[in-house]
Amino acid sequence: MKKSTKVNAAILIIGNEILSGRTQDTNTSTLATWLNSIGVIVKEVRVIPDIEKTIVDTLNVLRKENNYVFTTGGIGPTHDDITAQSVAKAFGLKYETHKEAFKILEAYYNPGEFNEGRQKMVKMPKNAELVLNPTSGAPGFSVENVFCLPGVPSILKSMLGSLKNKIVGGEPILSHTISLKTVESEIANSLTKVQDQNVEVEIGSYPFFHAGKLGVSIVLRSENQSKIDNCISQVLKFVKEKKIEIVDR
Amino acid sequence: MKKSTKVNAAILIIGNEILSGRTQDTNTSTLATWLNSIGVIVKEVRVIPDIEKTIVDTLNVLRKENNYVFTTGGIGPTHDDITAQSVAKAFGLKYETHKEAFKILEAYYNPGEFNEGRQKMVKMPKNAELVLNPTSGAPGFSVENVFCLPGVPSILKSMLGSLKNKIVGGEPILSHTISLKTVESEIANSLTKVQDQNVEVEIGSYPFFHAGKLGVSIVLRSENQSKIDNCISQVLKFVKEKKIEIVDR
Repeated sequence: MKKSTKVNAAILIIGNEILSGRTQDTNTSTLATWLNSIGVIVKEVRVIPDIEKTIVDTLNVLRKENNYVFTTGGIGPTHDDITAQSVAKAFGLKYETHKEAFKILEAYYNPGEFNEGRQKMVKMPKNAELVLNPTSGAPGFSVENVFCLPGVPSILKSMLGSLKNKIVGGEPILSHTISLKTVESEIANSLTKVQDQNVEVEIGSYPFFHAGKLGVSIVLRSENQSKIDNCISQVLKFVKEKKIEIVDR
Repeated sequence: MKKSTKVNAAILIIGNEILSGRTQDTNTSTLATWLNSIGVIVKEVRVIPDIEKTIVDTLNVLRKENNYVFTTGGIGPTHDDITAQSVAKAFGLKYETHKEAFKILEAYYNPGEFNEGRQKMVKMPKNAELVLNPTSGAPGFSVENVFCLPGVPSILKSMLGSLKNKIVGGEPILSHTISLKTVESEIANSLTKVQDQNVEVEIGSYPFFHAGKLGVSIVLRSENQSKIDNCISQVLKFVKEKKIEIVDR
């Protein structure tokens, strides 16, 4: 399959528990790292509450602006799980029992355990495609370019394998990090010059304070390794001139 | 000062490093927890890249839809720190050296250390109000209802004290959690009934798997303690009927 050069995505985190601060979202970092590795650039993340109108409206913006949208959360059995019905509404589709998903969960649970609560988890937008769940049975699903995944981080992670063949990425985004024992203000001007001379490489500068060390990580990102290499040489040149210690490269 | 009942906010996380998955954002959780404690409801979080047009456009949407907007990231000395100039553009203000901020950093650094890179950190939208930084000197700032904070979590945390008297919250949002040794599908129907009878309490259901325990936390949120208490009774009633073990309440 021919790869397009730029493929982008939005991540939509659905859940009051993130907005209240009760739960620390980690799915963004998991999904973003994985998407970058398969050549999908995350352009935007939004966190929104469990409110149907908000989910519908936000989805209808994001799915038109991006090649893919990945939602997390709201596909469990309780009253606050309203992602599937909201996706159905956003696409103008019926919200109904998905036969294949029903069969999967019927086989997954012991006889008598596939109760009314659990049966809610197989209600989806009509003709949704399933994203299989090797951890806890209940599948995610996709409609067109919108992929709906669970909020529980360990379950989400276990589903990336099932997702992989459904996503067509562009060129993988390559990244190289150089960590220096310095402060940002010391290298700001030199780094600006490198960025100005290498507009196709995204250069980020991030101070770090950990394990008793204080320093700056310079992150170089591009689809093109030789352009990254060119930046690395230019960075190492000013680092040498300024006699800055390299912590890691 | 009279408190309005509902005060809401958006959080705008600015930084390529979050979108690439390189950095795990923790500022959302810090800010959201703090804002809830002072009666400010976080309605939305967005994570966007270090692109001026995106920052300007997003800010101009969020600042009109919310009582407050809190940005994190992009106020350091390097080329990828473009929050201050973007905020100036969003408000149609000049981007210039802030005299008070200049004095603060001039006094903060040793003679000769307040170099060109660091002087970038005192360039702000004209007449911005400062948010003092007890950790590393360089202040954040606000323009109207937009508050710009740093991305480094420890520095951001240390600035909440300076922020506090600038924010007028509504009634604090109270929260009570009941953790049960059960699975969501077991309590889904009963919990739906409690939610239907208590529409002014936000009821969330969150499965947990930690320290070898599997269970569900029910989170009850409202500005009104007696409404929460009413929900607690109703939850404990069905918990008793179903002989579910209470892990914590």
